[in-house]
Amino acid sequence: MEKATHETLRHEIEDAVRLAREKNPLAPSITNTVTVNVVANAQLAVGGSAAMIYLPDEGETMAEVGDAMYINMGTLFPVYAETLPRTAKALSRQGKPWVVDPVGIGTGGLRTSLLLGFRAEKPTIIRGNASEIIALARLWELCGGNAGVRGVDATDTVEEARPAAIALARHTGGAVAVSGVVDLVTDGKVMARAEGGSKFLSMITGGGCSLGGVTAVYACVAAPFVAALTATAIYNFAGVKAEKRAEGPASFQTAFLDTLYRATPEDVSAQPFTLESVEKEEGHR
Amino acid sequence: MEKATHETLRHEIEDAVRLAREKNPLAPSITNTVTVNVVANAQLAVGGSAAMIYLPDEGETMAEVGDAMYINMGTLFPVYAETLPRTAKALSRQGKPWVVDPVGIGTGGLRTSLLLGFRAEKPTIIRGNASEIIALARLWELCGGNAGVRGVDATDTVEEARPAAIALARHTGGAVAVSGVVDLVTDGKVMARAEGGSKFLSMITGGGCSLGGVTAVYACVAAPFVAALTATAIYNFAGVKAEKRAEGPASFQTAFLDTLYRATPEDVSAQPFTLESVEKEEGHR
Amino acid sequence: MEKATHETLRHEIEDAVRLAREKNPLAPSITNTVTVNVVANAQLAVGGSAAMIYLPDEGETMAEVGDAMYINMGTLFPVYAETLPRTAKALSRQGKPWVVDPVGIGTGGLRTSLLLGFRAEKPTIIRGNASEIIALARLWELCGGNAGVRGVDATDTVEEARPAAIALARHTGGAVAVSGVVDLVTDGKVMARAEGGSKFLSMITGGGCSLGGVTAVYACVAAPFVAALTATAIYNFAGVKAEKRAEGPASFQTAFLDTLYRATPEDVSAQPFTLESVEKEEGHR
Repeated sequence: MEKATHETLRHEIEDAVRLAREKNPLAPSITNTVTVNVVANAQLAVGGSAAMIYLPDEGETMAEVGDAMYINMGTLFPVYAETLPRTAKALSRQGKPWVVDPVGIGTGGLRTSLLLGFRAEKPTIIRGNASEIIALARLWELCGGNAGVRGVDATDTVEEARPAAIALARHTGGAVAVSGVVDLVTDGKVMARAEGGSKFLSMITGGGCSLGGVTAVYACVAAPFVAALTATAIYNFAGVKAEKRAEGPASFQTAFLDTLYRATPEDVSAQPFTLESVEKEEGHR
Repeated sequence: MEKATHETLRHEIEDAVRLAREKNPLAPSITNTVTVNVVANAQLAVGGSAAMIYLPDEGETMAEVGDAMYINMGTLFPVYAETLPRTAKALSRQGKPWVVDPVGIGTGGLRTSLLLGFRAEKPTIIRGNASEIIALARLWELCGGNAGVRGVDATDTVEEARPAAIALARHTGGAVAVSGVVDLVTDGKVMARAEGGSKFLSMITGGGCSLGGVTAVYACVAAPFVAALTATAIYNFAGVKAEKRAEGPASFQTAFLDTLYRATPEDVSAQPFTLESVEKEEGHR
Repeated sequence: MEKATHETLRHEIEDAVRLAREKNPLAPSITNTVTVNVVANAQLAVGGSAAMIYLPDEGETMAEVGDAMYINMGTLFPVYAETLPRTAKALSRQGKPWVVDPVGIGTGGLRTSLLLGFRAEKPTIIRGNASEIIALARLWELCGGNAGVRGVDATDTVEEARPAAIALARHTGGAVAVSGVVDLVTDGKVMARAEGGSKFLSMITGGGCSLGGVTAVYACVAAPFVAALTATAIYNFAGVKAEKRAEGPASFQTAFLDTLYRATPEDVSAQPFTLESVEKEEGHR
């Protein structure tokens, strides 16, 4: 059965890559100022269309006109106190898929309060590094313990985030992706593990943020689990390929975006991943 | 006579390219966070000096100390409600040329209200894609109909924007530039048509925004119509040249900026364009 | 004796370069939107960790969890009126090193009032071009005269900024770095002069801003004067090396960041600089 699922998923990944290029879907973002350009360019490179906004009514409009939306918590402005709740509500109301990247979780009162508010709105896909995923599951009281704060880097391993990822996916009914040396993608029932990428993806800013934006593009044309897995796979593919041509992080970034643009559906679906059932596994610890 | 005009324009384009490099004029911007870095780097690449601001009194100061100014409506912050009207008034008061890019027109109450306010202030140059130009002419009630909203991409063709461009130019007494596969530049009396550029300019973010910023640099040293045509020509030149060396959108962007930097006055003035009188043409439909 | 100091400094520069790569220290920033991506990538390239924020309580948290902090005055938002004073106070309270880049000094009431407020908080390192350093010393009434405003470019020479740099360093008890064709770094007692870099560093945006961010990374692992000198040296090294491979400002930027990433402690400490005592020199004019 697993082989069949594998086969099915590979076809769905190919479809997602192809459909994003054919349909040019709009995946608007509310995202941080540090990597906003990288996010937009990565979205365009995989075939999507980008639109970045900050204001409350614009968030609501984008929830309506967009095919899926990306919310990244990196650099909050005061107006986010109004923009994010209204946008999240509009997305829920419309049943539009949305991707949340809880960057910086644990820093500042506004970020905590906004992320707490997302608990009820249930983002379709949550994407983060291990520390962020663990911290969010704890904030939502799906796991025990307390998460530390240290910039935007992961200090926990991906395996440590496994129960938190499962718990989050079961809570939202969507998918959760954890990025690291090994990547996990789960819908609470199945866990995919993938490898690839490049050390350089953590030596440039925007590697994670733009993965969230690209996930939102695929969420326009595929189910949440497939969208998250497709984005993970194209990043793993492009990372390996770009690293071979890079002399440092900046030339890596150029080669990486070019490779995102040139990647074929077959390139992406050929990326290896494993699948296992996690239905009997506890989604917390 | 048209040949003479052509000749004159070519000389004026050469002068604009040369003077921007010689005089290093200051063209401050209020522009979106997505492409602000690209705008600044493009302005520097053609010889200008950049300064980006958000606050109301800083807008007024920049209107005074700058040689021309660029206002891009991409990502509005709440403070823009005060900054843009005060800056526009200061620019009008000082008689300084300013370039407006109505990115995102149709999204959000603040953008609509700010763009409505610019009707009376009459920006010197308006630059946009076909959909944005049509939408602005309709917002200002210079054309009939209603413009759609879809991110920041053009869904109308450049030819469809022709009457709107003429109407806007006649209203402001300045110039209007419409970017697309074919580019139009008009002052309401003459219409220039140019080609070139690259498919990659719409596959990176900032192609249009930075063209606006570069137009503002040329508006420091040339008349509005010449400034808009020069910016269009250098983008067409650099686009063609950079595409030849690009393996994707990111390497295109690097080659494009390098080419902007290396382009000579003669490279730019040698770009083909056609000229026709539109004096008898209606500027609306 | 000067030779000994030279020797000692070279060792300290090597240590700083090495320790930044080993310890991956966190140097959060409050910095402008134009170059925020470049700042973060440059910080990562030399081994540091980056986190950019805007909100007041986040500034205080970053002052606690960061090893040093970078404040760049480039594009102020209204919330900075609260964020910067609270962050500066938190940094002083914790005795954490912080770097200020007074970009845009002279433009706008908020920038002036915030920079005036920093006089009492005494930033550990001040970094700017000649015009900015002179303007800050005048604003703090450490020198006579009035500074002009012109975007973000230096209109004064580095030598003209020498007394202002000395006066500022004596006031803060930290270090001051002035960037230009020749760079000055002083702690008010000794003056280092260094050369190198590239013409392209002033033809891209972010050359100066990212130098401030990298200085903050080194301030996590070295004394203020050494940190400022190390950052200056690695920029001079990388500038020369990158220019050889550049065809314009954009390919320069890529090569520059790659070179920052690849530079060894020995590469950086081998950069030439001169040292002289300025103890008898007046720190104002």
